[in-house]
Amino acid sequence: MNKPSALVFSAHAADFVWRCGGAIALHQTRGYEVTIICLSYGERGESAKLWKKGKTALAEVKSIRKSEAEKAASELGAHDIIFMDLGDYPLEANKKSKYKIVEILREVQPGFILSHSKYDPYNTDHMYTTELVLETRMIAQAWGHNPGEKILGAPQLYLFEPHQTEQMGWVPNVFLDVTEVWDKKRKAIECMEGQVHLWNYYTNVAENRANHFRRNSGGQAGGREAKYAEGFQAVFPRCVDEL
Amino acid sequence: MNKPSALVFSAHAADFVWRCGGAIALHQTRGYEVTIICLSYGERGESAKLWKKGKTALAEVKSIRKSEAEKAASELGAHDIIFMDLGDYPLEANKKSKYKIVEILREVQPGFILSHSKYDPYNTDHMYTTELVLETRMIAQAWGHNPGEKILGAPQLYLFEPHQTEQMGWVPNVFLDVTEVWDKKRKAIECMEGQVHLWNYYTNVAENRANHFRRNSGGQAGGREAKYAEGFQAVFPRCVDEL
Amino acid sequence: MNKPSALVFSAHAADFVWRCGGAIALHQTRGYEVTIICLSYGERGESAKLWKKGKTALAEVKSIRKSEAEKAASELGAHDIIFMDLGDYPLEANKKSKYKIVEILREVQPGFILSHSKYDPYNTDHMYTTELVLETRMIAQAWGHNPGEKILGAPQLYLFEPHQTEQMGWVPNVFLDVTEVWDKKRKAIECMEGQVHLWNYYTNVAENRANHFRRNSGGQAGGREAKYAEGFQAVFPRCVDEL
Amino acid sequence: MNKPSALVFSAHAADFVWRCGGAIALHQTRGYEVTIICLSYGERGESAKLWKKGKTALAEVKSIRKSEAEKAASELGAHDIIFMDLGDYPLEANKKSKYKIVEILREVQPGFILSHSKYDPYNTDHMYTTELVLETRMIAQAWGHNPGEKILGAPQLYLFEPHQTEQMGWVPNVFLDVTEVWDKKRKAIECMEGQVHLWNYYTNVAENRANHFRRNSGGQAGGREAKYAEGFQAVFPRCVDEL
Amino acid sequence: MNKPSALVFSAHAADFVWRCGGAIALHQTRGYEVTIICLSYGERGESAKLWKKGKTALAEVKSIRKSEAEKAASELGAHDIIFMDLGDYPLEANKKSKYKIVEILREVQPGFILSHSKYDPYNTDHMYTTELVLETRMIAQAWGHNPGEKILGAPQLYLFEPHQTEQMGWVPNVFLDVTEVWDKKRKAIECMEGQVHLWNYYTNVAENRANHFRRNSGGQAGGREAKYAEGFQAVFPRCVDEL
Amino acid sequence: MNKPSALVFSAHAADFVWRCGGAIALHQTRGYEVTIICLSYGERGESAKLWKKGKTALAEVKSIRKSEAEKAASELGAHDIIFMDLGDYPLEANKKSKYKIVEILREVQPGFILSHSKYDPYNTDHMYTTELVLETRMIAQAWGHNPGEKILGAPQLYLFEPHQTEQMGWVPNVFLDVTEVWDKKRKAIECMEGQVHLWNYYTNVAENRANHFRRNSGGQAGGREAKYAEGFQAVFPRCVDEL
Repeated sequence: MNKPSALVFSAHAADFVWRCGGAIALHQTRGYEVTIICLSYGERGESAKLWKKGKTALAEVKSIRKSEAEKAASELGAHDIIFMDLGDYPLEANKKSKYKIVEILREVQPGFILSHSKYDPYNTDHMYTTELVLETRMIAQAWGHNPGEKILGAPQLYLFEPHQTEQMGWVPNVFLDVTEVWDKKRKAIECMEGQVHLWNYYTNVAENRANHFRRNSGGQAGGREAKYAEGFQAVFPRCVDEL
Repeated sequence: MNKPSALVFSAHAADFVWRCGGAIALHQTRGYEVTIICLSYGERGESAKLWKKGKTALAEVKSIRKSEAEKAASELGAHDIIFMDLGDYPLEANKKSKYKIVEILREVQPGFILSHSKYDPYNTDHMYTTELVLETRMIAQAWGHNPGEKILGAPQLYLFEPHQTEQMGWVPNVFLDVTEVWDKKRKAIECMEGQVHLWNYYTNVAENRANHFRRNSGGQAGGREAKYAEGFQAVFPRCVDEL
Repeated sequence: MNKPSALVFSAHAADFVWRCGGAIALHQTRGYEVTIICLSYGERGESAKLWKKGKTALAEVKSIRKSEAEKAASELGAHDIIFMDLGDYPLEANKKSKYKIVEILREVQPGFILSHSKYDPYNTDHMYTTELVLETRMIAQAWGHNPGEKILGAPQLYLFEPHQTEQMGWVPNVFLDVTEVWDKKRKAIECMEGQVHLWNYYTNVAENRANHFRRNSGGQAGGREAKYAEGFQAVFPRCVDEL
Repeated sequence: MNKPSALVFSAHAADFVWRCGGAIALHQTRGYEVTIICLSYGERGESAKLWKKGKTALAEVKSIRKSEAEKAASELGAHDIIFMDLGDYPLEANKKSKYKIVEILREVQPGFILSHSKYDPYNTDHMYTTELVLETRMIAQAWGHNPGEKILGAPQLYLFEPHQTEQMGWVPNVFLDVTEVWDKKRKAIECMEGQVHLWNYYTNVAENRANHFRRNSGGQAGGREAKYAEGFQAVFPRCVDEL
Repeated sequence: MNKPSALVFSAHAADFVWRCGGAIALHQTRGYEVTIICLSYGERGESAKLWKKGKTALAEVKSIRKSEAEKAASELGAHDIIFMDLGDYPLEANKKSKYKIVEILREVQPGFILSHSKYDPYNTDHMYTTELVLETRMIAQAWGHNPGEKILGAPQLYLFEPHQTEQMGWVPNVFLDVTEVWDKKRKAIECMEGQVHLWNYYTNVAENRANHFRRNSGGQAGGREAKYAEGFQAVFPRCVDEL
Repeated sequence: MNKPSALVFSAHAADFVWRCGGAIALHQTRGYEVTIICLSYGERGESAKLWKKGKTALAEVKSIRKSEAEKAASELGAHDIIFMDLGDYPLEANKKSKYKIVEILREVQPGFILSHSKYDPYNTDHMYTTELVLETRMIAQAWGHNPGEKILGAPQLYLFEPHQTEQMGWVPNVFLDVTEVWDKKRKAIECMEGQVHLWNYYTNVAENRANHFRRNSGGQAGGREAKYAEGFQAVFPRCVDEL
């Protein structure tokens, strides 16, 4: 029987680390195969430290960023990491790229998908990524697209935590306890040598989301003792047999 | 060991039947003890058929409505039904009534709570009920209210389906398959002799929510074959160990 | 046969003039009987000019405001104006006052109701008024409230234009051409001697709403030639036989 | 003199049937000429039943879907049905296609337009369609686009009922009584042989919208006795001479 | 000449410390006189640690909480701290208490006001506090309330950071650099011995808000080097002479 | 040392005049260099008067509109006006045009940017313009786009006043007193000979926004005596050292 699987969309090379590194590591631990798609390397917009050194070439920056992302994915134990190299600032997908993503969606048959917030006035690549996810998810569900292939079901789409959450209209409705894999996430974070200023930031985030986990799982009556957590916004309704 | 439990707030006598009769019956089947609180009998505003007969007295209307509600609760197999008799159109709770609700919350220690939508311009009793729930849930959590009693944890609050959902700003994020207890819900519905015009309405709702259940559990790839479902809007984030 | 009728809720004495004076005058012209309820005289909060003179007594301010409102209602040709004297800053209604409003709703049997915006952080009396309207509209519809009386139907509730519309979350979905009764509205406005600074303001509003009327009735293809208009936000859906 | 007219945008071949078949039939009955534009045949995404048979070719699926749509349009008595064949999953319009739509808008000179909801995370073709409508409506209004042609006025845009309304942020503000043409709509529905699972669904919807019609046209005081209705969300403000 | 002043509303004794301790200390440093109003001591709902010890009396808990709050206010250098003792869980203000608050507003004549978020489903005391602020701000502006007194102007209302910001619909539109007074805020935080679990939480918040300050003051081009910051949501528009 | 600067995006030639002419003139007066980018001449959609004369050629309309815009910019004392000639109804930017805008953003290094509202169902060019601004602002901030150039900081984006504000979801959070430059704005307005129907409209707007300025800067206690004002919606949080 097939293992359960999940698919993570990362607009730029490092996004998956800060925003859902814990979810990746945790689900691998639970027997999932988690595949990461990096739509771009974040070579232009999120590699300031490299460019500031001067004389850097685009190919070189991409290569360094790719290497960092691979190392981080490895620390998290991810099943696979795929680089689409669609460019960044701005990120753009033509029809061929969209069909490639559809192909991956059908191959992976994810139980759930992770992507960026729907809105982000600071970074239009982020919101474009989630538009792409919704469009390709729809195509992958169509019986008439490459008839004969196994179509995609209706996987949940979780939006992971953006930077400056309130400005993005992002509201978490799920908290995931990632305490048991925190060390892996922290190691993955430390692979991102170009963005040291974010290491402490996202450690703070994880600690504070754990506080929210404790409150929502019991509050003053004694919630579950999470130390590190991640928040997600589920886009589609859940289907359950028990509330 | 204690059984799991749930608490349902019904502004008027019949609300619990249309809006979450399936959830009540289903959770009873699964070993929960479900308690229903009817804040009023719906004696003034939702008993038109009785009043139209003329010469009816308030006490008589209350008594008939109470009897219908008890029969419906019995069809659903509910653990208990409590009548607060707070009046309707408008429903009003003084401090004593609030503390009584707090007492019930602490006694029942519900795993989750069910109540009305947050907004309802047609029926201000409905939104008032959910304001009451949020306020009394908070009081029941306070260590300093009747110190020594067992305080309430952080039970999820699910808002059940209002009439004319879109006008209420209500958006379901959970669908519950109630196929296996549909017969019980239909029987409970038929206890409401004063509101026959709603029998077919809420049967249609249940059928259509089942369509949503199928779509969100698989869509064209083949979702779960629910025939009847109910929708709910969870107010607080969920705390999970797996997405 | 009865004439069609309408009911206008004005938190303070002058509100009905600025916000829907045109609608009042126009519907009177069309054969409606329009009744105005002033919940307060606006004696504390909107009578600055009188208080600044010093030595004024509350009863005197009320009397002057009442007189201005009566004159304005007369200029508009209103069928009736009722003063509830509920106080202002803050305006408050006890149960007896609510039942009095219910009584008026049932007597007038309005085809539509006019009231304030749902939200107003500058003036909590305004939002309280619309809460009152929703609550009393509900009670007036109940067969079990004063059984035997003719109950209220389901009249539309239009929210008239607040000051600083965007801060109130008010969005007009109906524009009414009041050109033919503009002179009456302007005369009513000029009855408000204590608020001269608003005369020009609401004349500008009426001119600009007429521009919106022209745009939405035809735009560059040639909309209807309104010169003065008023905007309203309908709360409930309309029921029609033709789109 | 010209007859009044209306224009319906249907992303996929069958959308117009479920979502506004009643409005089409009713307005034809009232003397309107209603033209339907099917942007695609829904050949890939909404023809699962055909594809599941295997060995089907795209041209064949399109042809079957076209035939079904024509039959349905005929049952509704529609004035005309135009197929743009823009593809589906995803639907895409280039500049030439947009100008073709502008041409149709100017020829038809619709009194009102019908289209999809603004938001739809399940089906990006739907929201893209309404973006197209807003863009082409604007172009058709421009004096400088193909100068000399009769420009478009400011027709109302009604958004018809999407599937899973609450997830789309769709809120109906108009209910249309379609009781007198229900038989026609049901016959049109039954032309959609590939989507039998939706026949009952949209019959339930029509019955329940009729309940909303009754409530909003009178409620407990006795609303209009509609048996089948459709809901719409008007995008632009209305311009009226009487509230 | 009078010093500039500010007024802080704290529903419970400790709220002002976590949420705007930096703003208090900073404005004192800049020559403001900052007055704090604690509406309650937070004796029931936010003193779990004390109650858990058992046998505690209400008066004792209040006294301990009051003492902590006074120490914290002193660490921040606050001009004054006023205790209203209105009770908590639930907090309630009668007319007399409202007029007392109006009196304070007029005496302090604050240049700006600080209070809780508008919405809080976890803690209804918080949203009630801001309702109180809006109502009393309005009364304090009325020439006819205690005529002769100096009325209140139109001070900005800033909503300080709630717990679980996204659940409250709170969106900061101002970030304040509190680096230079951070030591004072941390000392004030450490006065709250009953809530040690929040010390680290709000230190994390301050560090992360400083990241937002840097981003919004320059981003990758080099923003201002804030180390600790606080976020606020201004309710009313600003009036400026330069953008 | 460099002068402070600002950059104004105008979808069509005249937009900058009605919507922020006062801000342009005022900041020039205060020593800013304000550059205006007209993305199109508004040749098709907003030149009805010229087209109605008949026989007009596109080039001629563009030329007339350009001339009007230059005159208006001159009346306002603008530092520079740049015409992109991207077409209108619809306005479209390819990659080359986007990079040109990025180049301008980096050259001007604006302290703040002005653009259209985020939403506009009447005019999709307007919302497209602000999408362009967000995308190019992001690219201009990237160290890896044309490495070696001076990157853009994090300038505030102010959305100026759209037509029919409430339909656009636009909420002003800043009012700017433009009384001292009103004569310049009015002269610039009068350069727009093709849109005489808007002269009075935007004069009314300026007068009424001044009323809002007075209210928010002091209200009944005596606000600042602005006679003409403009409103803006800041998109990003402000960073301050004092509230």
